[in-house]
Amino acid sequence: MNQMCVATYRCFDEKADFDKKALSIAVGLTVGSWTELPEARKAEMEKHLGKVLSVEVHEQAGSERYADIRIAYPDINFSRDIPALLVTIFGKLSMDGKIKLIDLDVSEQFQSAFPGPKYGLEGVRQLLGVHDRPLLMSIFKSVVGHDLPNLQEQFYKQALGGVDLIKDDEILFENPLTPLEKRVEVCMEAARKAQQETGQNLLYAVNLTGPTSQLASQARKAIAAGANALLFNVLSYGYDVLHELSKDPEINVPIAAHPAMAGAFYPSPHYGISASVLLGKLMRLAGADLVLFPSPYGSVVMPKEENLAVKEALLAPSDTLRTSFPVPSAGIHPGLVPLILRDFGTDVVVNAGGGIHGHPMGTAAGGKAFRSAITAAMNGVSLREAAAQPGNEPLKAAIDAWGIKE
Amino acid sequence: MNQMCVATYRCFDEKADFDKKALSIAVGLTVGSWTELPEARKAEMEKHLGKVLSVEVHEQAGSERYADIRIAYPDINFSRDIPALLVTIFGKLSMDGKIKLIDLDVSEQFQSAFPGPKYGLEGVRQLLGVHDRPLLMSIFKSVVGHDLPNLQEQFYKQALGGVDLIKDDEILFENPLTPLEKRVEVCMEAARKAQQETGQNLLYAVNLTGPTSQLASQARKAIAAGANALLFNVLSYGYDVLHELSKDPEINVPIAAHPAMAGAFYPSPHYGISASVLLGKLMRLAGADLVLFPSPYGSVVMPKEENLAVKEALLAPSDTLRTSFPVPSAGIHPGLVPLILRDFGTDVVVNAGGGIHGHPMGTAAGGKAFRSAITAAMNGVSLREAAAQPGNEPLKAAIDAWGIKE
Repeated sequence: MNQMCVATYRCFDEKADFDKKALSIAVGLTVGSWTELPEARKAEMEKHLGKVLSVEVHEQAGSERYADIRIAYPDINFSRDIPALLVTIFGKLSMDGKIKLIDLDVSEQFQSAFPGPKYGLEGVRQLLGVHDRPLLMSIFKSVVGHDLPNLQEQFYKQALGGVDLIKDDEILFENPLTPLEKRVEVCMEAARKAQQETGQNLLYAVNLTGPTSQLASQARKAIAAGANALLFNVLSYGYDVLHELSKDPEINVPIAAHPAMAGAFYPSPHYGISASVLLGKLMRLAGADLVLFPSPYGSVVMPKEENLAVKEALLAPSDTLRTSFPVPSAGIHPGLVPLILRDFGTDVVVNAGGGIHGHPMGTAAGGKAFRSAITAAMNGVSLREAAAQPGNEPLKAAIDAWGIKE
Repeated sequence: MNQMCVATYRCFDEKADFDKKALSIAVGLTVGSWTELPEARKAEMEKHLGKVLSVEVHEQAGSERYADIRIAYPDINFSRDIPALLVTIFGKLSMDGKIKLIDLDVSEQFQSAFPGPKYGLEGVRQLLGVHDRPLLMSIFKSVVGHDLPNLQEQFYKQALGGVDLIKDDEILFENPLTPLEKRVEVCMEAARKAQQETGQNLLYAVNLTGPTSQLASQARKAIAAGANALLFNVLSYGYDVLHELSKDPEINVPIAAHPAMAGAFYPSPHYGISASVLLGKLMRLAGADLVLFPSPYGSVVMPKEENLAVKEALLAPSDTLRTSFPVPSAGIHPGLVPLILRDFGTDVVVNAGGGIHGHPMGTAAGGKAFRSAITAAMNGVSLREAAAQPGNEPLKAAIDAWGIKE
């Protein structure tokens, strides 16, 4: 059977004949020319020809005229890798006027070449032994220019607060002060020390950086040194690099995808690639176990509708792909936790930097405040009520500092 | 000495205090925090701190308020690779409101890690033995669904017209009908056959595709089969992949960078990365010998100012990097040649698809029409005058079909 991948474009033009435009895409990005072909040749070429599935024109006085155009591209035309898919559906076309790639559905056949997340949401939960609540992730405060003892201390304080995951800052690269393997060793030592106090497991996502051809060996070195997770700046390397790392059997730890550079693609209404494709569908297909993306709450915002579309893409049921853990990030403080749970449910990682390190009672208290907020929200107890309970002083201090947003 | 890479951003906001914004970028993307550090620590951290070089606010009634902000980032903070540089200067920041990366100047020290184009403009000219005129490149008409004899015939007809380079269509991936090595063999055979008639050398840029980790071995296979150039969809793989291919001593043929997906980055005034950085500076730094980009003339347009900024970035004098051949593409016909030469000078590749294959007298005549137009323009002869000369019937037919644009 001739399977196809379906791309949806939003195309802006005040005058264009969008049906004609759609046909020119379907033909131009597949067989090149059609009407002029002899009939016998058409029969042979039919299986390569793109199909226009739908053209929905939106025109209203006072708003920009646009159409949502859906085109199906035969799998037979491209190899089963993300670069080939993207070059086909949005290579030349990306430069052809005001046009944005707003959705993408790959065929079962195409998808079958992708194992997807090795751990996924359930696998990460199993590693941590936490099945019934949102996870809590924290981010180092400052890392550039700091040495190993400093990083170890920061790590320990974060771990003491009861966080489940700690991630490197994405701008921490290979450097003489805190080289990868040493960093893993001292941080995992801090993790074990904190575990003796908290009794809980912890994943440390160390930033995987450097030349593309050396990433797999860097990952193996990090794992040999004790790393139990990786952070990866996917968009600066390409989805195929993530895919190859993720399917590598020796890289047997979860990979968290960082959205660095995503803002170069998704925010324009007229150009680029929508967040649900960029940070949702493609990250999951390429094998990200956790995906960070800008939250709709904080300092780096993304409209809520787009945010939930990313979540949806990461969690949608699939026969072959595990789900990826959604990690809405930036500007998160404990007073937002009930809102996050209302929007995302419990299958979410609450991720905070300043909301932990900037806590008036210190970093460890920052983590504790979040954990209390999560417990309260899970039990339907208001944050104010929970904050009044003995032992929940950190939550009270957090609310006093940042308030509650509902 | 503490060397720094300098990024320039255009940042839109109706109300923001842009000086404050600039400072928050310079601190936030380097040391993380500054004012609260103890003095002794500041002395240690100074060398890691980003610097605001300038903030130019543009506010005019009736236009959007924006500022051009220049920030210098100490090299010491990132490893010498393009992913680390991009994640530092435009990772998180890309998601922080309406902001576009409009320029980038890397330090000498950073640049010293990049050999740049292995051949570059002069090297490509030497391979072809053509030093005194613009080169002519042609693109296959239709490739998807065609077999080897068909491609060979298309190739031969293009080569007969006197083109200097022929490039694969960027959407031709590894496929059973025209697999890489076989394709190279039959096309190079056609090239040799044509050379017996035309007496001229020809480069065939075969499309390098497939899994990232296998690209280098695919390139070596193509070269072993006779390929004398490569085409590469850089943005779907990442600049670092191009850099690694380009510096590989075994990949001893020029690499032409295709701009597929570039439209997801450069056209928005508010978001993304300007064409001069995306297709100019970074392509050259990563080692592209030729760079294709949308021309300001044809079907897929880019404003002329931006176009010339790309050219400028590819050709700017440098002590360490060879220049890259500019290849303005799309919608080019012979009647545009004088205009192209006026805008680009003679160090340009005139690149045509439809303008060659769609010629009323056939593909070979299409190439000849371009060559006549180039000769005329070089000699200051008007196209109309040249077209009237005996032997220049193809040029006349092209002008009758597409006109002359001045």
